[in-house]
Amino acid sequence: MTHTLSFASDYLEAAHPRIMEKLAETNMMQTSGYGSDEFSASAKRRIREACQCPQAEVRFLVGGTQTNQVVIAALLRSYQGVIAAQSGHISVHEAGAIEFGGHKVLEIPSEDGKLTAQQIEQTLADYWNDGNHEHMVMPGMVYLSQPTELGTLYSKAELQAISQVCRSYSIPLYVDGARLAYALAAPANDVSLADLAQLCTAFYIGGTKCGAMFGEAVVLPNPDLIPHFTSIIKQHGALLAKGRILGIQFDQLFQDNLYQEIACDAIRLADRIRSCLKANGYRLHFDAPTNQIFCIVSEEERARLAQKVAFSFWEKYDDSHTIIRLATSWATREEDAEQLCQILAER
Amino acid sequence: MTHTLSFASDYLEAAHPRIMEKLAETNMMQTSGYGSDEFSASAKRRIREACQCPQAEVRFLVGGTQTNQVVIAALLRSYQGVIAAQSGHISVHEAGAIEFGGHKVLEIPSEDGKLTAQQIEQTLADYWNDGNHEHMVMPGMVYLSQPTELGTLYSKAELQAISQVCRSYSIPLYVDGARLAYALAAPANDVSLADLAQLCTAFYIGGTKCGAMFGEAVVLPNPDLIPHFTSIIKQHGALLAKGRILGIQFDQLFQDNLYQEIACDAIRLADRIRSCLKANGYRLHFDAPTNQIFCIVSEEERARLAQKVAFSFWEKYDDSHTIIRLATSWATREEDAEQLCQILAER
Amino acid sequence: MTHTLSFASDYLEAAHPRIMEKLAETNMMQTSGYGSDEFSASAKRRIREACQCPQAEVRFLVGGTQTNQVVIAALLRSYQGVIAAQSGHISVHEAGAIEFGGHKVLEIPSEDGKLTAQQIEQTLADYWNDGNHEHMVMPGMVYLSQPTELGTLYSKAELQAISQVCRSYSIPLYVDGARLAYALAAPANDVSLADLAQLCTAFYIGGTKCGAMFGEAVVLPNPDLIPHFTSIIKQHGALLAKGRILGIQFDQLFQDNLYQEIACDAIRLADRIRSCLKANGYRLHFDAPTNQIFCIVSEEERARLAQKVAFSFWEKYDDSHTIIRLATSWATREEDAEQLCQILAER
Amino acid sequence: MTHTLSFASDYLEAAHPRIMEKLAETNMMQTSGYGSDEFSASAKRRIREACQCPQAEVRFLVGGTQTNQVVIAALLRSYQGVIAAQSGHISVHEAGAIEFGGHKVLEIPSEDGKLTAQQIEQTLADYWNDGNHEHMVMPGMVYLSQPTELGTLYSKAELQAISQVCRSYSIPLYVDGARLAYALAAPANDVSLADLAQLCTAFYIGGTKCGAMFGEAVVLPNPDLIPHFTSIIKQHGALLAKGRILGIQFDQLFQDNLYQEIACDAIRLADRIRSCLKANGYRLHFDAPTNQIFCIVSEEERARLAQKVAFSFWEKYDDSHTIIRLATSWATREEDAEQLCQILAER
Repeated sequence: MTHTLSFASDYLEAAHPRIMEKLAETNMMQTSGYGSDEFSASAKRRIREACQCPQAEVRFLVGGTQTNQVVIAALLRSYQGVIAAQSGHISVHEAGAIEFGGHKVLEIPSEDGKLTAQQIEQTLADYWNDGNHEHMVMPGMVYLSQPTELGTLYSKAELQAISQVCRSYSIPLYVDGARLAYALAAPANDVSLADLAQLCTAFYIGGTKCGAMFGEAVVLPNPDLIPHFTSIIKQHGALLAKGRILGIQFDQLFQDNLYQEIACDAIRLADRIRSCLKANGYRLHFDAPTNQIFCIVSEEERARLAQKVAFSFWEKYDDSHTIIRLATSWATREEDAEQLCQILAER
Repeated sequence: MTHTLSFASDYLEAAHPRIMEKLAETNMMQTSGYGSDEFSASAKRRIREACQCPQAEVRFLVGGTQTNQVVIAALLRSYQGVIAAQSGHISVHEAGAIEFGGHKVLEIPSEDGKLTAQQIEQTLADYWNDGNHEHMVMPGMVYLSQPTELGTLYSKAELQAISQVCRSYSIPLYVDGARLAYALAAPANDVSLADLAQLCTAFYIGGTKCGAMFGEAVVLPNPDLIPHFTSIIKQHGALLAKGRILGIQFDQLFQDNLYQEIACDAIRLADRIRSCLKANGYRLHFDAPTNQIFCIVSEEERARLAQKVAFSFWEKYDDSHTIIRLATSWATREEDAEQLCQILAER
Repeated sequence: MTHTLSFASDYLEAAHPRIMEKLAETNMMQTSGYGSDEFSASAKRRIREACQCPQAEVRFLVGGTQTNQVVIAALLRSYQGVIAAQSGHISVHEAGAIEFGGHKVLEIPSEDGKLTAQQIEQTLADYWNDGNHEHMVMPGMVYLSQPTELGTLYSKAELQAISQVCRSYSIPLYVDGARLAYALAAPANDVSLADLAQLCTAFYIGGTKCGAMFGEAVVLPNPDLIPHFTSIIKQHGALLAKGRILGIQFDQLFQDNLYQEIACDAIRLADRIRSCLKANGYRLHFDAPTNQIFCIVSEEERARLAQKVAFSFWEKYDDSHTIIRLATSWATREEDAEQLCQILAER
Repeated sequence: MTHTLSFASDYLEAAHPRIMEKLAETNMMQTSGYGSDEFSASAKRRIREACQCPQAEVRFLVGGTQTNQVVIAALLRSYQGVIAAQSGHISVHEAGAIEFGGHKVLEIPSEDGKLTAQQIEQTLADYWNDGNHEHMVMPGMVYLSQPTELGTLYSKAELQAISQVCRSYSIPLYVDGARLAYALAAPANDVSLADLAQLCTAFYIGGTKCGAMFGEAVVLPNPDLIPHFTSIIKQHGALLAKGRILGIQFDQLFQDNLYQEIACDAIRLADRIRSCLKANGYRLHFDAPTNQIFCIVSEEERARLAQKVAFSFWEKYDDSHTIIRLATSWATREEDAEQLCQILAER
């Protein structure tokens, strides 16, 4: 079987080799269940340290949609909704998981996948100033993604402004870090894990797309924030019996700075592909400095490329053009990026 | 106590006198509960006749939000959402009742409160054509209001086109008729009850705002559409023990053509007020031929009017203007409309 | 039409004449909506006074299942359940309304419809002592009915003991008073409205079965208990537009001690029927001193009675016997009770 | 670190070595996501074959509670509940996951964790014969566990009788096979995978406790049973991005008859422990021929044993006795069972 060139997603491979080795090595060990094991304890310690937040509560869940669903349910009261960008993962790509839990996603339009502090403040002010607001959904928290679903990044100043608005309205700020490693590794990024721990009420450090076989680490800087969190997780069918499988993975990811470095190659190769696209006259879409590359192509171009490389359809741009997405990852091979650039240059 | 002039809403009074008389007259009668009484049976017969739909199932509920919540829950599968205008009652003013039931409201922008057949078709096509649609919320029905929350009307041709789209995608079309009497009484209207019964999968005939003390009549032209509807209603806490109170009201509303005529004065007086507004240089908003009058006023104007008449704030128009709403109803008195016109003319 | 003798339920008639008169009298008055009117304010004042609880929050809802659903949703966190007797209304006769809201009813067996303080304490201790309790549903509140669905009464001492247990575990005690007037009027009763206000976190004063056309009054002795209660009510489709219809009814029920006396005749007549049953050798079931009479009859007896009087089937007692229920109400006529006694004596 | 003797659960180790090897071997392969990969396809083929059900739909989920929650949500209508034994996993140990999805668990008392066809039929008949059943929760499906949570087994004849009842009422029969391998390996068992495929509407083949690192395989003999199942899974946060991780595991489990044999040692060692218990005068509880051993011990005995071996507390038996559980698994070592027997003999 020949290798098919694929930039279709950032979860094509299973796990970083160090993780797989450790899973194999510990396979027949006996540990207690549900995250009460030593590997999970160690992983939590390392994450607290990386976040410079020694008191933080850390919990491991299996996937991103699950994590959003559980954390949002835990943070909202039944009559509250969650503010999110219209392009947010919870707005578009979770099959209604948030509404299934009873909450409205209060969607705000956004060109680049980001919300501004001003938009959020306006939404909150509009609600509280409306004489009729008891008949409307109370905005009860803010959901952001770092990087966003469109590959863009919040700057530290932007996050600080948003955090300030949330604090002034006493509502949680929650950051979805499904691809957080790709933010941390981007030269343009100035937001550290410690910044997130300072500015957010809750955030998650994505594993599935960032080196783990699967898994996301929820960080709650205030450890008393969510009482009975285990019951909430269990009630959502989200409590992994052999919790150590998650613990081992994050214990590896947070040794020797692996998580903060794992995405460096992905960013370097994404930048090379972006340069190649520009050099060959392709139109990039969104100002995305992370591992996702969005490009506007004609239907002919799309058909031509599709014969040689796998990528994903993003959305129609206009009647004759489409936005496609190419994604690199921690596992992308140098030679594959090279081959892609050659294909792109054959224009 | 002097009478305060109020056009704040169309539910300021209790019930049409005929209804109150009948309630008083039958007060000490004994009937069986939960809508199994003779008054409810008679009301259902009359509604079926008015809708020229002898086989229709008719059910009485207490209020509009409750009705939307129950009917939408009954018509959708757990993974489906409901298409609605961004200004729809279920989108804005039901405190998240639809999401509470687990369903996303798939909001479509609209200037005049109406959806077009094309918008609906596009939404459905976008979903089904998206390779990733299993990760998105499936549009499972369409919700419209006749008249809309902005007082506008669907024409029969528009409804036919929408109905056609729904049928081609095999999804229900549901019409919220909270103010349906005001549509039926409007000269501009060409959609009859019989048309609704032909074009919709379900609709409700509003009582609360149209002469009843409270109550809405759900009409299901296909009587087999919702099996076990009573259990669904009960589960929502929406089954009135003394169902005859609803039956008596609708039995009166559908005698001697009362429902179809009850709103005539409301429309006539609303038209007079609109003429007066135009004559005095006010800017009307939305092309609304029913009982709600939307008007853009400056902040000074608003303050001046507020001293003399009660109305409702609709929304900010711009930094220095507001949209206010004046509503007439079946109970509006000639002399009150006259007095309002004088106040408006004092500009 | 001849009058059919019926003891089938306690909601055969509409409203106490005083209520109907007031509704008719105020019919064309204009008031603001959603319970912000003067009648509602007056009714709340009177109820606070009757409960000797000047600070209490009082809210009016339409029906009993709705009230249970809304109050329980407001008091529980998402991962909690409600302790109730297996025969409780929420356990059996609300079509799953509590589960629909996401909460388990933690049912406790009971012969007479009552829970004991000891059973409740055991349930709570079992949960908290179980090493695995995070995998189980946390008991988050207690639901009782006064009188119970089987017509029995809690004594003040019993309620105090239960209240004490709830306080020691910091969970709300909620009392369903759908038929509360029939408890208040029973000679055997020693629990006043003021006692309920002292011992409960929340309770409701039933209107539908106790003189109102419909309506239940929720009393929250601690007014800060449920923030944003209006949004919660609206979200459940339970906010009546013309709230004054509820306000007027309770304003009448709490004038001149009407509510506390309205059920006296019902109890007196129920006692007469019970005496007659005993005198004629019928077997009574449950020790029920209120308006519901439960009686074990053979199938032949049941058939014979059914030809002459309407009653309700309760449940099978054994292969050849059935428990039937006869209910009196505030509206039961002396001559009807007399006629029933004659029929019973024809054994 | 010395090895601590543990019979605390059947999920102490990670995965069967064959699975871990395959995961490591395929680690850096690229595959498409969400279960569309070749490993998942192959695993499905093997499972269909093992079930002798070539047309079955097979889906892989991560854990047992999640699987129950998703399948039950997919099979019930909003107003229906699920019949289960009071000791069923969904009744007791899923933190209310089923109620969270809006459905009541209709619990039936059971001494041995099993339901009888007669109990189920009675429950269904009681509902449908009750004149008031529209106010009650409609039993919409039956949930069984094979083996049960108490280690007992349904015989083929018992399952046939239950299946027959379900079919006569047209409701699904769903079997939770969290420990199915331990049933298949038990000499007392006469129910094959093919029997389950014939008798059930849905069942799942447990991986987490039967050799997999995690994962459960849902089998739907009628492939059209659940339309849009992927959306339902996604909406529950239960769709694993790298679906091949599940596919690879089940592909291994269903090669060379591994799943059907993996539990043989567990049963053999459990039998040896049971013999030892009996020989030493311990009282066994439940007639459990699978890998779970339930034993009634005095408090002193419990304390003594707890110093030498880990086991789990099941429940209080009486004031001075406790039921403890010892579990063997596919990974239990011969020498550990031996050591346990010696400890038990030291009585």
